[in-house]
Amino acid sequence: MKYLLVLLLAGVTSSAQIKKEQLNLMPWPQNVVLNDGNFALNKNFKVNITGNPNPRIFGAVTRFLRRLDGRTGIFFEQGFITKLNEVPTAELQINCTKSGKIGLYEDESYHLDIKQNKITINATSDLGALHGLETLLQMLQNNSTSFYFPTSQISDFPRFTWRGLMIDVSRHFQPVDVIKRNLDALAAMKMNVFHWHLVDDQGWRIEMKKHPKLIELASDGMYYTQEEIKNIVKYADERGILVVPEIDVPGHGSAILTAYPEIGSKVITLTGGTSEKNIQGTAIATYGIERNAGIFSPTLDPSNPKTYQLLSEIFDEVCPLFPGAYFHIGGDENEGKDWDSNPKIQEFKKKNKLATNHELQTYFTMQLVPMLKKHGKQLMGWEEILTKNMSKDAIIHAWRGANEGVVAGQSLVDAVKKGYKTVQSNGFYVDLLYPVESHYLNDPMPKGVELTAEEKARVLGGEATMWTELVTPTTIDSRLWPRTAAIAERLWSAEDVTDMASMRKRLETVSFRLEELGLTHIRNKGVILRNIANNQNTESLNEFSNVCEPLKGYKRNIGGTEYQMYSPFTLFADACTSDSKDSLAFDEAVSQYLGNKSPENKAKVAAFFNKWITVYKNLGELSVNAPLVQPVLPLAKKLNDASQELLLVLDNKSTLKTDDLKKLIELCDSKDHADVELGVYKSLKKLM
Amino acid sequence: MKYLLVLLLAGVTSSAQIKKEQLNLMPWPQNVVLNDGNFALNKNFKVNITGNPNPRIFGAVTRFLRRLDGRTGIFFEQGFITKLNEVPTAELQINCTKSGKIGLYEDESYHLDIKQNKITINATSDLGALHGLETLLQMLQNNSTSFYFPTSQISDFPRFTWRGLMIDVSRHFQPVDVIKRNLDALAAMKMNVFHWHLVDDQGWRIEMKKHPKLIELASDGMYYTQEEIKNIVKYADERGILVVPEIDVPGHGSAILTAYPEIGSKVITLTGGTSEKNIQGTAIATYGIERNAGIFSPTLDPSNPKTYQLLSEIFDEVCPLFPGAYFHIGGDENEGKDWDSNPKIQEFKKKNKLATNHELQTYFTMQLVPMLKKHGKQLMGWEEILTKNMSKDAIIHAWRGANEGVVAGQSLVDAVKKGYKTVQSNGFYVDLLYPVESHYLNDPMPKGVELTAEEKARVLGGEATMWTELVTPTTIDSRLWPRTAAIAERLWSAEDVTDMASMRKRLETVSFRLEELGLTHIRNKGVILRNIANNQNTESLNEFSNVCEPLKGYKRNIGGTEYQMYSPFTLFADACTSDSKDSLAFDEAVSQYLGNKSPENKAKVAAFFNKWITVYKNLGELSVNAPLVQPVLPLAKKLNDASQELLLVLDNKSTLKTDDLKKLIELCDSKDHADVELGVYKSLKKLM
Repeated sequence: MKYLLVLLLAGVTSSAQIKKEQLNLMPWPQNVVLNDGNFALNKNFKVNITGNPNPRIFGAVTRFLRRLDGRTGIFFEQGFITKLNEVPTAELQINCTKSGKIGLYEDESYHLDIKQNKITINATSDLGALHGLETLLQMLQNNSTSFYFPTSQISDFPRFTWRGLMIDVSRHFQPVDVIKRNLDALAAMKMNVFHWHLVDDQGWRIEMKKHPKLIELASDGMYYTQEEIKNIVKYADERGILVVPEIDVPGHGSAILTAYPEIGSKVITLTGGTSEKNIQGTAIATYGIERNAGIFSPTLDPSNPKTYQLLSEIFDEVCPLFPGAYFHIGGDENEGKDWDSNPKIQEFKKKNKLATNHELQTYFTMQLVPMLKKHGKQLMGWEEILTKNMSKDAIIHAWRGANEGVVAGQSLVDAVKKGYKTVQSNGFYVDLLYPVESHYLNDPMPKGVELTAEEKARVLGGEATMWTELVTPTTIDSRLWPRTAAIAERLWSAEDVTDMASMRKRLETVSFRLEELGLTHIRNKGVILRNIANNQNTESLNEFSNVCEPLKGYKRNIGGTEYQMYSPFTLFADACTSDSKDSLAFDEAVSQYLGNKSPENKAKVAAFFNKWITVYKNLGELSVNAPLVQPVLPLAKKLNDASQELLLVLDNKSTLKTDDLKKLIELCDSKDHADVELGVYKSLKKLM
Repeated sequence: MKYLLVLLLAGVTSSAQIKKEQLNLMPWPQNVVLNDGNFALNKNFKVNITGNPNPRIFGAVTRFLRRLDGRTGIFFEQGFITKLNEVPTAELQINCTKSGKIGLYEDESYHLDIKQNKITINATSDLGALHGLETLLQMLQNNSTSFYFPTSQISDFPRFTWRGLMIDVSRHFQPVDVIKRNLDALAAMKMNVFHWHLVDDQGWRIEMKKHPKLIELASDGMYYTQEEIKNIVKYADERGILVVPEIDVPGHGSAILTAYPEIGSKVITLTGGTSEKNIQGTAIATYGIERNAGIFSPTLDPSNPKTYQLLSEIFDEVCPLFPGAYFHIGGDENEGKDWDSNPKIQEFKKKNKLATNHELQTYFTMQLVPMLKKHGKQLMGWEEILTKNMSKDAIIHAWRGANEGVVAGQSLVDAVKKGYKTVQSNGFYVDLLYPVESHYLNDPMPKGVELTAEEKARVLGGEATMWTELVTPTTIDSRLWPRTAAIAERLWSAEDVTDMASMRKRLETVSFRLEELGLTHIRNKGVILRNIANNQNTESLNEFSNVCEPLKGYKRNIGGTEYQMYSPFTLFADACTSDSKDSLAFDEAVSQYLGNKSPENKAKVAAFFNKWITVYKNLGELSVNAPLVQPVLPLAKKLNDASQELLLVLDNKSTLKTDDLKKLIELCDSKDHADVELGVYKSLKKLM
């Protein structure tokens, strides 16, 4: 142990030895040069700002100082930075040529130069300087007693101009503080677009002064006031982030139609003989806020002038809240059922020579273009808006792939070839709870397709999407982070930055550091486990959660009806995450053992089995006073049973037939318990 | 082990055996009768509301259902409750005679009756029903597989009508979500007053439309918009909580005077010969937002008509934001230094026959009474406002005690005897980090003093105070909770409910349950420890934190200058809390051992020593890559050294002289390291 300590001391305290591989930068910068020597931090450390930056730099530098202070415990003397050139002799000099404009194509580059007694950040705009400050924070190193920055030069700029995250606040409303902390996380990851999915079947979330019915009838009281929206837009602006609002039409219309059923497409055929005053023919259907997950038929009526009247008035009220140049109108997953069954709409199609529902939807969407243009906004929509007549100004948001029965990436290629700008979200659906690898290696730039330089330039970037059918304010962060940071790297860093091992290593530190911004992805796990354990010791639950992953895709909620919008999300699956920690470690142990069956390697594998046997025993004891542990037990038993037998296998003492052992392991490939699956199943199989 | 399991099963699953002592109710109700049998919970469980309640009941019942859902994982079918008598056959029937009025003296009583197939809550007002719902949640029991309520009858009402918490948002600004989650906690503890200390030397926190300078110059950009204030007042109202705003005058005036130096009392005497155009005599001083903790001289000028003009305009803008009947004007800690040195003010005193600064302050305060009355508000102030001329309408907020050189409780007695209504905060300063016992046993009703019934009635209740010199949004909850829950019980429950052991046992469950409301007092400890540990294993830090307590009183920040408002509060002391967990357990082990030196009892004590020896070793290893661990090591070493020796003492193997052993233990009585002290020192001493 003493020897180890000496080794550790040698490794950690010799400050000059930092190598590139030791840096936990993410997204990885375009150019990093490490030199010998360090900049040592102390309480006199001060910052000075020169040039012509936007005033957002002052708040950003103040926050930077507080974060550095929090990490190091150094009592910096400098408090609030509010002026240019306040401390000309400061150790950190930031110079920006011009005020950064929030939006696409802005110069976000920066040069960070760390010398032994001076640090400089030079950037064209303050937006670049903000990125430089994040990189500087990530450069922080320490030995056993102090903190320092390694001398270095970093030149950096983003590969794509659209590096976004979408959050759906309709299915589960996400309060202001949830949005704000995630904006902080986006900024830390150098992401620059927050796509705010504000309206869907499950609720309308924007305060409407001229159309209060949308709030009174279609929000369950959960919405953002206009002041809160402006406040969030300002908060985003201060962090270099563009906010793109979305009002999803004409499908996903349950909430809108709950307030305004008169613009719905559904027809109710009245049969005679009722007391309803001889009403003949059709009547207006009623709608309700949707409580389930899925695709629903409520759709706006594209043949009704009132539809456009209302939408125009809505845009008139909503657009001024968002200074950005883009407005997302959704346009996805309209199956047209209610259109098909409405004779009036059928007639309208005929009259306007619209052969298909897709053409009818294009007709509808085209009416929105001038409504938005009036407010200086460009229309953006999910890929379904792409048809031959769609305005070339529209931005196409690609999202579908194998799950939807189409070739992944194809819609993006179609869009750019047809002259549209486009953003890739296929492969970036973090709510599906797929492993980080699948997102990290998902390049928005299509492979194996010939694209001209012009076409390539139309690929604006990508966007992670967080649909919230199964996500509450308590759990959303653990569904977003740290995986979204890997997407941030894909969108910022060079195309060839794809080393999984390096990414995983850096991601661990990045994930930990997100905590200082208030992100709850780590801390809230304990909250959920304590509730499940009924305030008993959570250790065994925690250990088991480290090999369990919530069911992927939408398998946790097949049919969309088990979990309604007000169902409990305080269950074991809610405490588990993708990329279960111990599963990866176990897989490495198995691989090592299979490569070399040394006693040491065997012991490593056996240690896992022994742990899981203990976990099962302890979970059983825990469950005596914790009903919420019960659903977990059958799966823990399966892992226990396989572990017991595989321990014997390791020692060549198993008397089980191969087929029976196989069965035992196959039982671990289960999706039947507690909405989770074992992350170790594939590795267990390797031991067969 | 199997035997233990059987015992446990027998104990937990036999649902009918619940005894009063097993209930974790807090505050303890006035009358509890337990019967045989249970109400079993299942997904069909529904709620129905009848009578004439305020609509706040609908949201309250919806939140109740979600919390019950979250605890039990039962998928209740009922979603949102929005109407009276929606489900007449529901299992839980709530009836309220009338709409509850937010304020003092409202009937908050309720009767909860749990039968095997029906639960009823009867209350005069919905405010009582809200309390009944909290009690019902606390009545939840479980066996190993299911949840139930024991059949019972509870009649309950509060002992005091003012059960408050003050939060200082000036010294460290506390964002909206911090306030909201703490309002939820107050409601859960049946507290009904939120005293919002909005203005002090360190910042003005209210958006002012007519006097924007207060925000522009005196808030560092950290303030509540008027909409946010209204929103919080509404949020409080929905939870049965009155909001009492405070603008602290005439002392604690640095922020106000930063914006309006012209109404300050400080005199600057100009000496001739400057370039300042022959200005002679006095000039206006400048002020700055205070960054330190302490009592400062900036004070409003009571002789200046402009002072009253400004305050009147401020009240005109601020009062309408708060529908409640009370407005707190502070009035504390005005030392009058700037008054004494200002000739104009001295002249004013003479002219108005005001013999002392205290009389001058009363003159000042009396000018505010009509300004507030105009808006239907009664003036409230800290006890310093009490002088012979003070209006009898004023509410006196008692706070001083031994620390301030006066007899604890005396000012309260003085106030009621002079005919004032009064609220007790002396003994309820939770920010001082004293043990829960000191607050729990602090009865607002004076002991050993003869008071008439009328005088007793003037004791409205009490208020916990959270001053935030050393408290950030990350740490505030762990400074408030769970100790404030013990104060809630003191203010609600019968006078003779004072059993410490019972309280401690119940408090543990109450503390855990507060997590479901978003309180962060448990989860954020890990955040701070991970930062200190530099993302290494936090186990040893956590173990050590369980015997360490942050320095009490204001000893952590002697002189008020070490920790400024922007200093780091991410240190070991910030992870520690009052009533350190293991210290109490160790003290019990020591007492048992001293009572009976059996091998078993000895082993229990020895286990602690061995743990602390290991902790020291592990902390040393941790510190190799974690500079923030270094300040903790010397104290851990002291505990290690004492533990090593005391292990020998237990075995009669110590060769140390008594004096040397004593010295070793006395070293553990240290306040020199990491701003914490050892909670186990006194128990160690017992082993001498």
